[in-house]
Amino acid sequence: MSRDVTYNELSAKALEILRKGAFLTTAGNNKINTMTIGWGNIGIAWQKPVFMVMVRPSRYTYELIEKSNEFTVSIPFKDMGRALGICGSKSGRELDKFAAAGLKTVAAKKISTPVIADCGLHYECKVIYKQEMIPEQLAAADQSACYPSGDYHTLYFGEIVASYIDY
Amino acid sequence: MSRDVTYNELSAKALEILRKGAFLTTAGNNKINTMTIGWGNIGIAWQKPVFMVMVRPSRYTYELIEKSNEFTVSIPFKDMGRALGICGSKSGRELDKFAAAGLKTVAAKKISTPVIADCGLHYECKVIYKQEMIPEQLAAADQSACYPSGDYHTLYFGEIVASYIDY
Repeated sequence: MSRDVTYNELSAKALEILRKGAFLTTAGNNKINTMTIGWGNIGIAWQKPVFMVMVRPSRYTYELIEKSNEFTVSIPFKDMGRALGICGSKSGRELDKFAAAGLKTVAAKKISTPVIADCGLHYECKVIYKQEMIPEQLAAADQSACYPSGDYHTLYFGEIVASYIDY
Repeated sequence: MSRDVTYNELSAKALEILRKGAFLTTAGNNKINTMTIGWGNIGIAWQKPVFMVMVRPSRYTYELIEKSNEFTVSIPFKDMGRALGICGSKSGRELDKFAAAGLKTVAAKKISTPVIADCGLHYECKVIYKQEMIPEQLAAADQSACYPSGDYHTLYFGEIVASYIDY
C-alpha cells in the first residue's frame, strides 16, 4: 500500500533522513540498477518541484540514466544499512545488487523506473535539466576532497512527478 | 535575538515556505541589494549542507554575487507580501529597495552580506560552486516557459555556514 503525501511533508522528511543514505534507482536496456547516495538537493526550479542527484560518469547508473532520462529515489525509514553498504560499494555491472542486498523492486506509478520495495519514501523523477560539472568552478578544497581521481559528477535535475510513502 | 536551529529543522521549514517567496540578499562595492526568489534547492553536496539559488545575468544581484561569492537567504515567517512584491519587480540599480519596501538589514554572523531584519529564517551561504546554465540541456517546454528572452540563470551553490531564526 502507499499513501500520497504533500510535497512539503515529503521534502522535510527526505532532508531529515538523506544523510543516512538513500537508493538511487535507474533502468534501461532491460537492466535495473540501484546505488547508494548521501548527496542530493530538493526544492523548486523552473516552476516545478525538483530533486537533484549527482552521478559520476564512471558509474553504471550513469549509463542507465543517460538512456532513460528518469530515476527514482527511495529513502529508507527503517534500518537498511547492510543493503545501503552493498549498493554503495559494488557495481551493478559485475553484481546483481538486488540479490546480494536482498532488495526487491516495485513498479513506479508514473515512470518506467521502479522503486525499492518496502523502503519508506519514494520520489519518481523525470530529468528536465542536466549538466556536467565544470571542475575549476568548484572551490579548490572541495575539488581535492571529493575528486582525487577527477571523476566529476553530472548533475541531474528531475521533476518530481510522484512521491509517496509505502507502508 | 536569534536562536540556532538544526539543519534539518531549518531545511524543512525553508521548503515549506519558500513557495511564498524569500529574499536573496547580496552585497559588494559598498552596495547591498535584495531580490525576491521563489525557486531554490536545499540539500547536501560535496559533504556540506548547501543552498542553491538561481540568478539571471541581467540582475543587479548577479553583479554583486559575482564579486562577493556569498549570499544570504531570508525567509519570512510573517506576511511580507508587499515587500516581496517590490523586491521582485524593481531593480536595485534604479531604486533603493530597502527604503521603498520598508526593509532593514542586520549584520550576518559569519559572512559580510547582511540578512533582512525581523524576517524569520536566515541562511548565510558561501558560494562553493557555480555554473551557467546550458540552454539546450533544459527540456524544451521549460525553455519556452521560463526563458522567452533567453536570459538563462547561473546556478550558485552556497555552503550554509550559519542558519538561524530571529524572533
